[in-house]
Order: sequence, then C-alpha cells, then structure tokens
Amino acid sequence: MTATAGQVIKCRAAVAWEAGKPLVIEEVEVAPPQANEVRLKILFTAPCCTDVHFWEAKGQTPLFPRIFGHEAGGIVESVGEGVTELQPGDHVLPVFTGECGKCLHCKSEESNMCDLLRINTDRSTMIIDGKTRFSKNGQPIYHFLGTSTFSEYTVVHAGCVAKINPAAPLDKVCILSCGICTGLGATLNVAKPKKGSSVAIFGLGAVGLAAAEGARISGAARIIGVDLNSSRSEEAKKFGVTEFVNPKDHEKPVQEVIAEMTDGGVDRSVECTGSIQAMISAFECVHDISPSSRSLLSLVCHQRRQPSVGVRHHAGWGVAVLVGVPNKDDAFKTHPMNFLNERTLKGTFYGNYKHRTDLPSVVEKYLNKELELEKFITHSVSFSEINKAFDYMLKGQSIRNIVENTSLLNTFVVASKDIGVSAFYNFGRRKCSEKSCPKRS
Amino acid sequence: MTATAGQVIKCRAAVAWEAGKPLVIEEVEVAPPQANEVRLKILFTAPCCTDVHFWEAKGQTPLFPRIFGHEAGGIVESVGEGVTELQPGDHVLPVFTGECGKCLHCKSEESNMCDLLRINTDRSTMIIDGKTRFSKNGQPIYHFLGTSTFSEYTVVHAGCVAKINPAAPLDKVCILSCGICTGLGATLNVAKPKKGSSVAIFGLGAVGLAAAEGARISGAARIIGVDLNSSRSEEAKKFGVTEFVNPKDHEKPVQEVIAEMTDGGVDRSVECTGSIQAMISAFECVHDISPSSRSLLSLVCHQRRQPSVGVRHHAGWGVAVLVGVPNKDDAFKTHPMNFLNERTLKGTFYGNYKHRTDLPSVVEKYLNKELELEKFITHSVSFSEINKAFDYMLKGQSIRNIVENTSLLNTFVVASKDIGVSAFYNFGRRKCSEKSCPKRS
Repeated sequence: MTATAGQVIKCRAAVAWEAGKPLVIEEVEVAPPQANEVRLKILFTAPCCTDVHFWEAKGQTPLFPRIFGHEAGGIVESVGEGVTELQPGDHVLPVFTGECGKCLHCKSEESNMCDLLRINTDRSTMIIDGKTRFSKNGQPIYHFLGTSTFSEYTVVHAGCVAKINPAAPLDKVCILSCGICTGLGATLNVAKPKKGSSVAIFGLGAVGLAAAEGARISGAARIIGVDLNSSRSEEAKKFGVTEFVNPKDHEKPVQEVIAEMTDGGVDRSVECTGSIQAMISAFECVHDISPSSRSLLSLVCHQRRQPSVGVRHHAGWGVAVLVGVPNKDDAFKTHPMNFLNERTLKGTFYGNYKHRTDLPSVVEKYLNKELELEKFITHSVSFSEINKAFDYMLKGQSIRNIVENTSLLNTFVVASKDIGVSAFYNFGRRKCSEKSCPKRS
Repeated sequence: MTATAGQVIKCRAAVAWEAGKPLVIEEVEVAPPQANEVRLKILFTAPCCTDVHFWEAKGQTPLFPRIFGHEAGGIVESVGEGVTELQPGDHVLPVFTGECGKCLHCKSEESNMCDLLRINTDRSTMIIDGKTRFSKNGQPIYHFLGTSTFSEYTVVHAGCVAKINPAAPLDKVCILSCGICTGLGATLNVAKPKKGSSVAIFGLGAVGLAAAEGARISGAARIIGVDLNSSRSEEAKKFGVTEFVNPKDHEKPVQEVIAEMTDGGVDRSVECTGSIQAMISAFECVHDISPSSRSLLSLVCHQRRQPSVGVRHHAGWGVAVLVGVPNKDDAFKTHPMNFLNERTLKGTFYGNYKHRTDLPSVVEKYLNKELELEKFITHSVSFSEINKAFDYMLKGQSIRNIVENTSLLNTFVVASKDIGVSAFYNFGRRKCSEKSCPKRS
C-alpha cells in the first residue's frame, strides 16, 4: 500500500472551466478509488483532437468544469475494492474504452466493443456511483471519457487500464492510448496487407501515419498516401509512404487515379479522414479493374432486363477499412456490384485492439524496435504549458505533443529508485538520429 | 483417343431459335475442340434462372439461335491441342466462369475472378477464334456462358472444366456447377460462421437454401430464413433453417425484428435475393444493438459539432455477405457508423470457389455425406422434355430439375463397362428416405 491510499490527494490538474477558454492549472482534490476503480499517477499525457473538440463544445450541451485528456502513461497509486489484476506501482496505459472481460463482447474474439465500458462521450461521472472523483473546494469537476488524464492523479475504472511492461518508457508508449493504436490496428488487425502488397492510406494525420506505419511493418511494397494537403507528403515518407496523391491535383476521381497507378487497384486501403467522399474512394480504389470486368455488369443488366451499358466497374480482391469518424448525416453509397466483385468493406474501432489483452504486445513491438513511436512525437511541453500543446494541434503543427508531469516524475523517482528513471522518462535523453526522432520544436 | 476424336459429331441439342419460344430438340453438328478446348459428352444438365433470363431476352439484343445451359456433369470425349490436364474419360463439371491458372487473379489466393475466362454473358463464340463449334446445315448456333450444356456434346475452354472424382454420381454433383456452390461457398468460404453461431439467410430459393446448407454444415445453432413467400418455410427446414421470418408480417424493418430475436443481431448474414432493400437489411441485421451503442453516435455528433440525437445505432462483430445480383440502377446506402461499429460487408461471386482448384473437394464433401445434394433435386426429366424443366422453374415449383441424357448414358455404359453405371446415374435407384431425397414430382 502507498501512503496516500484511501486518502484524498491534492494535486495539480488542467481544468477546463469554460468551452474554448484556456485550461487553468488548479489544485484539485482527487477522491480515493471506489470498487473496481484505480487511482493513477499520470506521468505523461498527450492531447488528441477529441479533447479539443469537446473542449470547444460547439453544438454540444456545455459540460464544465471538466478535466480532459485520454492518451497517457502512468503508475497505479492505489486500487479500490475488488481490483485484483492491478496493484500499486504497476505501469499502465489508461484507455478511453474498456474491457470488462465479462460481457458478450469481451468474451467474443470478434469484438472489442465492451458492453459495460464502451466509449461514452456523454458520461461525465464514474460508472459505479454516478459521482465525480474530482473536486475543487467542494465543487465537483466532471470526468471525460472515463480517463481525465490532464491531471497529476486521476481515477479510472480498472477495466479501462492496460498493464504494460515496466521497462517501456512511458513518455513514448503513452501515445498508444488512442490514435496510434487506432491507425496501426486498422492496418495490422483489420486490413492485414501481405508482404509485397500495395496499400492506400487516406489522410496523413496521426491516425493515417500510424496506419502507414502498420503497412510498413507488414512489408507492403507500395504505400500510397492520399491527402488534400501536399505539405504532408515529405513527413509521410518517414512512415513508409512511398507515393503521394493529392486528389486536388487530378481531374478524375482519386480512386481512378490510384487504379491506374496500380494496374487495377490497391490490395488494401485505410480511410482515416472521416470524409464520406474519401470513404467511398477508399472502397472503390481497391483491386481491381480489368477490361473483362464489364461482363459482370452485363449480367446485372441482362438479368434485370435492361440494356447493357459501358460503365466501368471494378472487380477483385481488395479490402477497404474505415477508421475516420463521419458526419451524423452522411450516407455511404456505392453500387452493390462493387461488393459482388469480391471487395470487402470493414470498419474498425480502436484498431480492433482489446486494450487490456492486446496493448502489452503492442508495447513489446515497440521495445523490440519493430514499431517506431519516436517519429510520431513532434513536441513536448511541461504540464504548466499544456495550452501550448492545444495551440500546436489547433494550428496543425504537430503529430503528437507529450505533456510531461516533470514534478511528479521527480517525486516518483525518489520514491522508487529500484525501478530506475529510464523506464519513465527518456525522451530527449536517448540519443536519437534525426530519422528516428524528428522532434520539430 | 476416342473414335470420334477430331471428327464432327452429330448429336441432339435443345436449340433456342427465338426469344421465349420453346426449345427445339434438333440434330446439330459439333466441331472438334481447338487449342485449349475440350469436347464433353453431357450426361446431366440442370436449367438455372440465368438460362431462363437470357432465353426470354427481354431488353437484350436477341442472340439466336443459341444453345443455353451451364449446370452439368459430363465426360471428356476429346481434347484440343495443348490440353494436358484433362483426357478422354475424365469426369468433369463445366463451369460458366474460368480459371486459366496464369493470370494475376488465378495466381492470387484472394480472387476467383480469372482475367481470361471470367463470366461474360455477351460472349457467344469460342474465345480462341471467335467462332461457334455448333452448327445446323452450315448455320452457326451461338454458345452461352462458354458452356452450352443443353446439348449431348459441347465444346468448352479447358479452363472452364473441373475434373472430379469418377466415383461421384454425376446426376447429383452436376448441380455444383452454379447456384449451389454460389450459396454454399458464400457461407463456408466468406461468411464463415462458427459452430453454435446464428446466421440469417435472405431469400430461400436454390442459392439461399445452399447458403443455409452451408450454415448447417458449419454447425450454426440458429439459422433464420427470411423470405417474402411463407410457403417456403416448410421446405427450408430440410436445409437446416430453424426459424422463419416474412418481412411482410412485421411493421418494423426486418433487421430490427432479427435484432430483437437474437439479442442484438445475428453473427452472420447471407443475402441471396438481389433486392437492394434486402441487401441493406442483411447488412444492418448483423450483431449487435446495445443501449450503450448510442455513445459512438454521440462521438460522431460531437466531433462534427452537431447536437446528439437518440437514433439507435448498432455495434458489433457481424459479417454480412452479398450474393444476389442487383438491379443496374441500385445504390447500396447505409450510415458509415454501421461499418465503424466493426461490421463487415463482403460480396462474393460463385461462393469464392476457384472451380478447378476447389470443386473436387466440394464433391468429396458430398461423397463423405457432409453435404447433402439430394434435397435440392426436386424434379428430373428426360432430355426431350427439357421445356418441362423450364416450366417448373418459371412457375417456381422446383429447386433443381435434372435433365437426363439417358440415350447417351446407355451408349456410354456400353462403351465403358469398367467404370460402372452407378458412377453416372443413380438418381431414383439409390434408396432414398423422404428426408434425404424429397423428389417432388
């Protein structure tokens, strides 16, 4: 047991008091974890666009004061009643969606959509008692995504915490809590490109670059990056992207451009923008087009007793994976023959990872140098400078910004010398080549 | 070499002289096979709805005289130059699509859409020289689907012929040439339900019943048949269907009815009607719905800055497979969140079987009693009564009608006593229980 177990902890948190207004570093009170909860010391956290959207709160019912944050790495400080799989000192990644281990979804190999702890952006309190664990002078402060990692200490449901190898540097692996696993898993777990195959990635933000990294790890021979912003093409090369297409540079639909580049279409595609047109293009750009593919269409026309027309239709073996979150009113629309020609369309959530089950092995992929995380980390700021990290994101200048709770880190190192500082903090200390660690700021 | 090799063969064929007019049994001339072709003696053939559609020729450019037919079992009579994998006497199933073995698709494990020999309903002559092999008094008679099995002898590209175990009764396995493999493979090769899982089948015609048979073989615990014609529900039980839903009996969309029956949706669905509404229902009825699934929708709404609404959206692990051929102007339309909730939508063509590679093993499945074919065969007629078989189909009275070339059979048995009659013809001779062989006529 740690000395603070069962006690209210006073610590610093970045509180959002109003929509769109800078976060304020405040001293808050963090109550002890209740049944099935754990209290974490957050050493590193990285803002993600979802934090920014809910902080801006445009079109939503305002829910403030609130502590945002859901990508993070930390240490278990204490555990609530009934928690047996975690203990103080464990190195963990909190995750915005859960794995209760008991529901139909958790028991199915085919799903990571836990019934109990599935992402819920509307929830602002703990699931067990509907109360917050954060307060300031008696005023409750709302939670966000069940994680609220923009705080030195936070309380999380134990089913939303993945225990990882303590040898992994938390300042790197903390980014596995959300976007990087989402893109990486979309490729590795869902699209599953074969060695030597071709993959198109739509959208070269953090998630798309992680999808490209997955294709690079899979040994794809051609990785075609698609983005409306050509300035992203250079950076994308570091993530294995071999060719770049800006749809704005072409008269014809980008799916036709890609089909021509690849003699009929790519083997796999991953859509990471959320634009409905990109979704349709990502689906229709997968293999393949051939002159004889008209014949299936003519079967359609004849069977339905309509004259055959010379419309080009594709045929083939392609798999398209949708990752980006669409607009509420969007409709995915395509000719059903595009499916009958043996294409597959799949969607994914958090890269199909079950975080408690799977994150430890993703961390191992990083430790054995198969997965490169350094190149995603473009900036780092101290906890008191967290608004700077929001600025970088709003301006599109960063891929991932690490917010470091350096004061906590020192506390922790003093208290736990036996584990060694390198396990928590080696960003900027490890000797990095420009290639593997393109720190931009 | 057979005595007829290299010679023109005169034999009977059922010739369609005009659209929609009864076929006429004529003596026709069948030229010897050219390079990469084989000439087959057709012992059994089964009309399929595609024959009927092209025979009716409504809305198509009329292409007559023509010999239809594409589901059949026969024996190789002679082979053309360059054919090394087939020889006279081989038992074969001709197939309407090909496997050249050399193109990109044939070399890919992921496709059965051969570039050279893929189905082409517009083609009416042999691919090698653009000529027909059939004629009557010097007048060419057109081919259909490269098979034209409504003839005692036909010429087929060697890449469109699957060699099978000669112990298999051709009067049963002949139905594997088209619809039965299409439905069976859609379930076994594409949907891949697990033992104990739930499967919905849309459309209980021959293809849908074959899809149900695939689910039965897979050990599915619940097989839900969906059809607008309730009279099909009784027959469907023989194919493993455990529950029946007629969408007309319900106020709410059938996908919601199925979701309620299955506590959130089926594990797999297979769509065998070609109706666009059934396609959308088949996709949206796969697992699952849960109260917390609203949360993903709310993420959409918030990220795009629109108010959250209480629309029910599904989440889960379901796989839907499209088999039915749609209308030319149809559009498949759904909310993209239905994909992001980890549903998969796949299309299939001929059950994803590569016929030369895979049909021998399907035949073995029948021989070892895993696959039951007898129950698909509701009628049998002699070759001279072939128009009766068309009638049964037009009236919807049959699943599969076997047309028997009995005169040829006798010729063959005399010439090949060593193989034995039972391998070609045991329909009506094998002792059948009513359950395993529900001959209706």
